Amino acid sequence: MTTPALSRRDLDFLLYEWLDVTGLTTRPRFEEHSKDTFDAVLDLCADMATKQFAPHNKKSDANEPTMRPDGTVELIPEVKEALDVFGRAGLVAGQFDESLGGMQLPTVVARAAFAWFQAANASTSSYAFLTVGNANLIVAHGSQELIDTYVRPMLEGRYFGTMCLSEPQAGSSLADITTRAEPQEDGSYRLTGTKMWISGGDHELSENIVHLVLAKIPGGPAGVKGISLFVVPKVLPDGEGGLGERNDVTLVGLNHKMGNRGTTNTLLNFGDGTHTPGGRAGAVGHLVGEPNKGLSYMFHMMNEARIGVGFLAISLGYAGYLQSVEYARTRTQGRAADDKDPTSPPVPLIRHADVRRMLLAQKAYVEGALALGLYCSKLVDEQDTATDAADSARATLLLDVLTPIAKSWPSQWCLEANSLAIQVHGGYGYTRDYDVEQFYRDNRLNPIHEGTHGVQGLDLLGRKVVMQGGAGLALLAETIGATVERARAAGGDAAGYADELSSALQRLVGTTQRLWADGDAAVALANSSIYLEAAGHIVIAWIWLEQVLAAAGADGDFYEGKRQAARFFYRYELPKAGPQLDLLDSLDRTTLDMEAAWF
Amino acid sequence: MTTPALSRRDLDFLLYEWLDVTGLTTRPRFEEHSKDTFDAVLDLCADMATKQFAPHNKKSDANEPTMRPDGTVELIPEVKEALDVFGRAGLVAGQFDESLGGMQLPTVVARAAFAWFQAANASTSSYAFLTVGNANLIVAHGSQELIDTYVRPMLEGRYFGTMCLSEPQAGSSLADITTRAEPQEDGSYRLTGTKMWISGGDHELSENIVHLVLAKIPGGPAGVKGISLFVVPKVLPDGEGGLGERNDVTLVGLNHKMGNRGTTNTLLNFGDGTHTPGGRAGAVGHLVGEPNKGLSYMFHMMNEARIGVGFLAISLGYAGYLQSVEYARTRTQGRAADDKDPTSPPVPLIRHADVRRMLLAQKAYVEGALALGLYCSKLVDEQDTATDAADSARATLLLDVLTPIAKSWPSQWCLEANSLAIQVHGGYGYTRDYDVEQFYRDNRLNPIHEGTHGVQGLDLLGRKVVMQGGAGLALLAETIGATVERARAAGGDAAGYADELSSALQRLVGTTQRLWADGDAAVALANSSIYLEAAGHIVIAWIWLEQVLAAAGADGDFYEGKRQAARFFYRYELPKAGPQLDLLDSLDRTTLDMEAAWF
Repeated sequence: MTTPALSRRDLDFLLYEWLDVTGLTTRPRFEEHSKDTFDAVLDLCADMATKQFAPHNKKSDANEPTMRPDGTVELIPEVKEALDVFGRAGLVAGQFDESLGGMQLPTVVARAAFAWFQAANASTSSYAFLTVGNANLIVAHGSQELIDTYVRPMLEGRYFGTMCLSEPQAGSSLADITTRAEPQEDGSYRLTGTKMWISGGDHELSENIVHLVLAKIPGGPAGVKGISLFVVPKVLPDGEGGLGERNDVTLVGLNHKMGNRGTTNTLLNFGDGTHTPGGRAGAVGHLVGEPNKGLSYMFHMMNEARIGVGFLAISLGYAGYLQSVEYARTRTQGRAADDKDPTSPPVPLIRHADVRRMLLAQKAYVEGALALGLYCSKLVDEQDTATDAADSARATLLLDVLTPIAKSWPSQWCLEANSLAIQVHGGYGYTRDYDVEQFYRDNRLNPIHEGTHGVQGLDLLGRKVVMQGGAGLALLAETIGATVERARAAGGDAAGYADELSSALQRLVGTTQRLWADGDAAVALANSSIYLEAAGHIVIAWIWLEQVLAAAGADGDFYEGKRQAARFFYRYELPKAGPQLDLLDSLDRTTLDMEAAWF
Repeated sequence: MTTPALSRRDLDFLLYEWLDVTGLTTRPRFEEHSKDTFDAVLDLCADMATKQFAPHNKKSDANEPTMRPDGTVELIPEVKEALDVFGRAGLVAGQFDESLGGMQLPTVVARAAFAWFQAANASTSSYAFLTVGNANLIVAHGSQELIDTYVRPMLEGRYFGTMCLSEPQAGSSLADITTRAEPQEDGSYRLTGTKMWISGGDHELSENIVHLVLAKIPGGPAGVKGISLFVVPKVLPDGEGGLGERNDVTLVGLNHKMGNRGTTNTLLNFGDGTHTPGGRAGAVGHLVGEPNKGLSYMFHMMNEARIGVGFLAISLGYAGYLQSVEYARTRTQGRAADDKDPTSPPVPLIRHADVRRMLLAQKAYVEGALALGLYCSKLVDEQDTATDAADSARATLLLDVLTPIAKSWPSQWCLEANSLAIQVHGGYGYTRDYDVEQFYRDNRLNPIHEGTHGVQGLDLLGRKVVMQGGAGLALLAETIGATVERARAAGGDAAGYADELSSALQRLVGTTQRLWADGDAAVALANSSIYLEAAGHIVIAWIWLEQVLAAAGADGDFYEGKRQAARFFYRYELPKAGPQLDLLDSLDRTTLDMEAAWF
């Protein structure tokens, strides 16, 4: 397809006209950067994604990875070719310190640039972004030796990384993992256990694979307080900068998924004796940081990973949106409602109001979600580089509150966008001749991994809006309130949206208080998914109002489109939160009272 | 999987405890029947679906039909084996007259029985149900010769049937079909043209394939008023009860779909000269009924087909619901919200409120949709066999209004049920090791074919609720009003639901009047899809209230489940119609005013 996977025009608007990303170059960390260097990275990534990643997206889906009899993984060759180009360009190191060979890009620019790869080829890009997340975590919490041994080759694109959390019996409930790590006399550990759903868990794309593994050191506390984090390489270093013997990490099987098929998703055995490093069974691992703090380290990365999942969902939604706009402009079918002459020529699909509804809904979802994702990414930059500690702390707090929404809202609504993209294509959209059915299948993963939709709801309502005495929700309300004030001052449609948003926000705050008023967690949390969805719609309404303000006074199709999409969101979408808040306010017990035997 | 594909208990409740299907046996057409014969058919179908259809459902999906170099179609052998068993049992003829070898089953019983096959294997069952629809149409509008030549072998399971409406350039807009039918001196026609999306359009499953083809006779009126209907067999009869030469109907290609893969979906050429019946090119066809009335005949069948699509969506939703209930009962994960002891054993998923929410939503969707589908099916029986002509006319009118909802509501919400079924399964649900991902892919077809979601909205708001001076909507309101009165008399929860339903219904009627008040079709119809969805939720709320009344006074898990699902629908679902009706009342122009260049 020649349709772009993302809109550079929209990215320019969001980054420069709204978020003032150029302003970050006054910070010491980004002082070598300028709008020109940001543009260069965005251009490079758009070009590389289009030329190296997009062309094999369908082929990768149709030819999913297979396990050879010798236990290695067969992938179509284009995957490695694309990732090699990505690695050689130094993009894995985009956000990292210059001292590690990185570009010190702001997170917000890196996310925008990398979204091109996610939109062009979700599966192939995942190998790279898992590696970035892995390296980031080791840099944050690992020793210099781990950084030198494992992070540097990852940043050079020679090693890839994974995150090994889930086990066959323990997914959402990490308290129940059973992988064990036995301390050794030399300070290392030997790991034994089975990990499930490990993306990129095995392949021949890189010289080595660096697994970050959650495991329990015997004798430690029960539950999540006894979880530690380990680096477990597929191949052990030889001590001279090269690779030595195989570690005892074995690919047991590949999962066969509905979508996202190009990313190997694996069942891995650690320490089953298939390999015998040092002459005996057991996967050699190295502790990251301190014992029993593994989950907190992993959550440091998980927040990034969750925003990353949001971007994956956004990118797939965006690619489908653009393809369906293009299709609706070129495919003709039927006539206007008031044209009764069957001999008049058929009109393009886009002339039908219901098709425009489906396109506007997609636009409102994907552009709203992208804006939220970039806003959160800029909060990461604020957190990391704000000159004032209080500003940094505020960014952290706001990011904490927004993360479950930045993960779940795109996963829900950009999937819906993909469904609408299929619908715009009609019967053709249901076939594999077009791309949108794959986007829909690929995107269905996103409400599941890195914390399910339900887990995000519990995180938001059970933790984020109540932590620090409700400071997070108060900060969100204050931040939205500031936008409301600006919008009221701006007048016009913005002022009307401000009133609607302000009213919805007050309801959300009131509902939150009501849910926790009597301290019954079971009742408060019974409908936490509904709370998550209502809060998500209110946050996206706020983000759309921000875009309206950023577009104020500007003329032309692009800005008219922004205003119309905002109007759509306020007319068609924000009101959906009303009945959800009504339900929450009623402290409804329907699901609590339902008995298993009644199903 | 050993989980049943449908619930016989629920079918018994709906058929016997609610719809009093046994009462139909007082009608002359059904006088040979009794509850015993109905039960026997239901048992037979459940058993055959489980043993012959379900086992190859996944295999059929993984091994989609391919076209051999000689132009024939390769399917896994289990498809033919299952359909042969189905045909030999005389099930194709289930609803047909005894004079044609049929069982004269009521439609409502036949639909319930056949849903077992749709739930067990949507793809394989489609061949059979397309044949039923085809035969039904020829019986209704075709000559005795066409019935004898084509319908009888279809009812015996020897011939299969198709519906050939769409062309590559004309799907929703049938006015633009270009297939031509040239009259011949012998009274037959020669057809030339290309048909797209023809399910079951070619295969080697049956001795012959009977295509029902829409085409235009040259010189006829433009648009839909010039469309005629033809029987075009794949193989021409030899005049002695056997098969003669190949007709000029050629398989050009198979469509490769996201789901529903076991049903061949074809691009067919008619009259391209690949075959030369009678020594020359052109597909031999026979006119059904009168010229230029083809679309009205086809719509007679299309209403059935649309309810059939609803049942397909329901069946897939139901199968996924039952599997996710079973999974949630057996899979353990995590602990209760108030259990802080990590050494306590994990609990079954079904103990978590959010999982019960996802199961209750599925239950409310699939049982509500099944009830509506069976209600509509009984209206078909009323229409066909009511002893009073006025009763028959009322059934027809109510069926006309409900058909777009009976098609679109299950297609939207039972697909959502399948998404929730995946979510309950977590990561496992996204893999092909479980069935639910296939149900989700299979079900995504249903909002597209036999009239898209948007087409159903235009049909409901643009035609059905305004025809005969609004008589259809008035009858629906009267019918729902009668339920409201009974529920108020019953008291308790039912009376509360009645008030909510009555209020929503009044709003719907008022909104309908407001939309058409100034006669601007473009404004009235701009949000017809939203109208369809709001009306659908109100209708399903009514159907749930009907079920509550049918369950009144009965104790036990099954009835408690019905009551709790109804409560869920009234608490979580019906309120969604509120903002939709608000939007419609505002005569919103957002989609109308959106310009193509703004996307």
